[in-house]
Amino acid sequence: MGSERPKTFAGRFFEDFRLGETLRHATPRTITAGDASLYAALYGARFAVQSAETFARAIGYPQAPVDDLLAFHVVFGKTTPDVSLNAVANLGYAACRFLAPVYPGDTLTAKSEVIGLKENSNRQTGVVYVRSQGFNQHGRVALDYVRWVMVRKRDPAASAPQAHVPDLPAAVAPDALGAACPPIDAAAYDLALAGSPHRWGDYASGERLDHVDGVTVEEAEHQIATRLYQNAAKAHFNLFSESQGRFGKRLVYGGHVISLARALSFNGLANAFHVAAINGGRHVAPLFAGDTVFAWSEVLDAAPLPGRADVGALRLRTVAAKNRPCGDFPRLLGDGYEPSVILDLDYWALLPR
Amino acid sequence: MGSERPKTFAGRFFEDFRLGETLRHATPRTITAGDASLYAALYGARFAVQSAETFARAIGYPQAPVDDLLAFHVVFGKTTPDVSLNAVANLGYAACRFLAPVYPGDTLTAKSEVIGLKENSNRQTGVVYVRSQGFNQHGRVALDYVRWVMVRKRDPAASAPQAHVPDLPAAVAPDALGAACPPIDAAAYDLALAGSPHRWGDYASGERLDHVDGVTVEEAEHQIATRLYQNAAKAHFNLFSESQGRFGKRLVYGGHVISLARALSFNGLANAFHVAAINGGRHVAPLFAGDTVFAWSEVLDAAPLPGRADVGALRLRTVAAKNRPCGDFPRLLGDGYEPSVILDLDYWALLPR
Amino acid sequence: MGSERPKTFAGRFFEDFRLGETLRHATPRTITAGDASLYAALYGARFAVQSAETFARAIGYPQAPVDDLLAFHVVFGKTTPDVSLNAVANLGYAACRFLAPVYPGDTLTAKSEVIGLKENSNRQTGVVYVRSQGFNQHGRVALDYVRWVMVRKRDPAASAPQAHVPDLPAAVAPDALGAACPPIDAAAYDLALAGSPHRWGDYASGERLDHVDGVTVEEAEHQIATRLYQNAAKAHFNLFSESQGRFGKRLVYGGHVISLARALSFNGLANAFHVAAINGGRHVAPLFAGDTVFAWSEVLDAAPLPGRADVGALRLRTVAAKNRPCGDFPRLLGDGYEPSVILDLDYWALLPR
Repeated sequence: MGSERPKTFAGRFFEDFRLGETLRHATPRTITAGDASLYAALYGARFAVQSAETFARAIGYPQAPVDDLLAFHVVFGKTTPDVSLNAVANLGYAACRFLAPVYPGDTLTAKSEVIGLKENSNRQTGVVYVRSQGFNQHGRVALDYVRWVMVRKRDPAASAPQAHVPDLPAAVAPDALGAACPPIDAAAYDLALAGSPHRWGDYASGERLDHVDGVTVEEAEHQIATRLYQNAAKAHFNLFSESQGRFGKRLVYGGHVISLARALSFNGLANAFHVAAINGGRHVAPLFAGDTVFAWSEVLDAAPLPGRADVGALRLRTVAAKNRPCGDFPRLLGDGYEPSVILDLDYWALLPR
Repeated sequence: MGSERPKTFAGRFFEDFRLGETLRHATPRTITAGDASLYAALYGARFAVQSAETFARAIGYPQAPVDDLLAFHVVFGKTTPDVSLNAVANLGYAACRFLAPVYPGDTLTAKSEVIGLKENSNRQTGVVYVRSQGFNQHGRVALDYVRWVMVRKRDPAASAPQAHVPDLPAAVAPDALGAACPPIDAAAYDLALAGSPHRWGDYASGERLDHVDGVTVEEAEHQIATRLYQNAAKAHFNLFSESQGRFGKRLVYGGHVISLARALSFNGLANAFHVAAINGGRHVAPLFAGDTVFAWSEVLDAAPLPGRADVGALRLRTVAAKNRPCGDFPRLLGDGYEPSVILDLDYWALLPR
Repeated sequence: MGSERPKTFAGRFFEDFRLGETLRHATPRTITAGDASLYAALYGARFAVQSAETFARAIGYPQAPVDDLLAFHVVFGKTTPDVSLNAVANLGYAACRFLAPVYPGDTLTAKSEVIGLKENSNRQTGVVYVRSQGFNQHGRVALDYVRWVMVRKRDPAASAPQAHVPDLPAAVAPDALGAACPPIDAAAYDLALAGSPHRWGDYASGERLDHVDGVTVEEAEHQIATRLYQNAAKAHFNLFSESQGRFGKRLVYGGHVISLARALSFNGLANAFHVAAINGGRHVAPLFAGDTVFAWSEVLDAAPLPGRADVGALRLRTVAAKNRPCGDFPRLLGDGYEPSVILDLDYWALLPR
């Protein structure tokens, strides 16, 4: 009953991936109230549904769910040993849908399908597209998303498969939203307790919101967070090797930035209680410990959900910047981004109507 | 159903407060075993009642309560967005009573009444007095306290209300103590397990106790703590803005200092298992990451509780200092404090008789 | 009901220990899901049995146990106020057996027996040998181990007891292993989910495994960990005093290094799901914040467990080094260790057959 795979695993290189293959990821993870506490303490989120059993139950949840992004990070973490241990860059996300609520006590597992491969012209690297799914203990899909990463080749001379780039939607359609949000009693949603009088109907396309506050990131914080997600990517933990690398220091996990921006967005979007989908996201520049993160959002669209009068969806573009307040909404500068911008995230959030 | 309130909230200024108005604070919070673990890990508290289910049940609690100061910080955190976002200084506390035990699973909410207003002579700021209450999910008051803060005016020319300063007691009376402590079986209180042979009757007024140990504070620690309490005060998190501010660096939340001093006080007060009231407290000087906190206490009074033979109360003055051991009990220096002193706290603790 | 013991406790000195005396340690501790989350976030362990309820139950556990080393650290922490507050060095461990699984909800207490005393020739210090036991709330021994520490004398002139050094086994015998591991259904142990195809039978004596990854330690991390264990040893927390001490900075708790090495060993030993015994361990050199820890292991022995076909034991020597990858398996250098080596740990782990 031996195995040919070496016991110490150095990760897959570009030429190890096969179009259509399924990767079943290791390390099932039971999410607990302890994880929810740590998540709260690491980001300071104040969305009432995730913060209080009483609030969640009053509007129709069977119990308070954990933050959607906690579930995302845990599933993402499982994919890293098989997908991105030798990644040069995490290039993008698409078509990410939250399909079942995740509660303390649920156990998440994950698998990924290789849906695209394209060698780069330098033959040193290639882009791998995977569709990853997170499952709860009942076998129900809780999360479904595509990401693509640039992965090193072990051997630049290795032959590459024929290029295949999947078609990806620019955004998740409104009628595909809401599966992870039970029907809620919008009248029982207490606006004062939630921290803002603004329901879904109070927002309009084109509206821009400065989230005002800034938060400085410490090495211990992002390391604790990234380990909580069992994300084993080396760049976040190893000062010895990173001090000799590209940046000379540890890189903060991109998902940490997303969670920081989401927590900051409470000031302006306090009732956007559920992330229903991520349409796309770019980590425009790296974040390092010692930097202070600010964020602002633009409402790209406001869509009702077919058949639901309880909640509506806002398509939001949340931009995070480092060491620069966002009162003037920094983003584009000619063809690119302002140098301070670190994240450009496009997602759908649900609010009570 | 729109709202006139802007979506991004910059906090109330002095002229926004009205005497007698009630502020219902946002973000209900369910306290969990995860919060208790984090609290333990952030401060190293070793009081047996909060540390062990077996110990708590043996003396008569239905389950182990969370640390009293965890409940205090959570309630305090709720008040910050409405009361102290534009505060210059947190000036004092009075009449703080713990009125119901808080257990993992309880949900806390908070409201405050404005009980005093007094513009300062410079007309730039004013003092706001609020009486805040924390409630559990049964609507029972768990915490009731007064604090006063110096708040900036938006417009120095704005007219100020007639000054009103509330009468505040110098201390909570012994007969108002104990509501949060169920009747305990003092004979079942295991002194060896608790870590000290000294019961209530072993302490006398005037006794002074050096708590010996020192603990150095890290930025990640106080940020994690303060976010756990959903305390949104900017000065604790934002190095970018604070580097241009008064101190040039982030300020540690005053409540963090109180919890550090309380945890240090275990060495000398191991059986002071419950904080029943806070009579008053002054944050004499700021604490910053990298500083080492020491503490000592003086017994100001020892009072029985009317009608209770199970526990007695000690009125304690706990003084914390930074970067200076407290074996010689530093406090007063002429009219003021020794420069190393950061906290002067006056509270009632209960011990088994 | 007074007591002669001073209220502030400065710890025992060498001359305070008596051969054969039993020390009943303070602070019972209920382990919770919050503790398990923090442990996961501090070390990044990915062993499936401790990570997921579903995985643990599938193989026969009644619920997911906490990490064995979490239980070890909690028991160890209880012994520090009575044994090692005045220790100069933690010299070694022996005969450490894990005898009952520890689950969230269990409460641990501890006691120690003084089994050896030997004054050093300089008469400034002496070595104290204690056999410590951790008990769960049912009174069952969960952990049993010997450690010895060098402890300062209060008074060098104090007379010393006759030297007594206990006989200690070089290793725990295989027939004494396994009490903390229920019978498991090895066929239900899902290798893909666990992260490695290698069962017990795939390892052989003499095999060496580089664990590849490195992890940098932050002050906040080791302080949070060490407080989670209620370990009150001063050297880990007090920069003010340590800056004037031997190293000029805070020392990382040795157990933190053990847990870091164990978590790193997942890469190579993913199915070594249970630490059944620690035969011995040496903290060869101190670790400080800012250092990056690497590790490698050698299989010293592979032993079946008498009467059990479900699991087998590997005796492992895990060596941790700082600021030095371990691909070339650093350890011995002439009579001593390479200067980078910080830990040399000899233990038994169980794997499915």
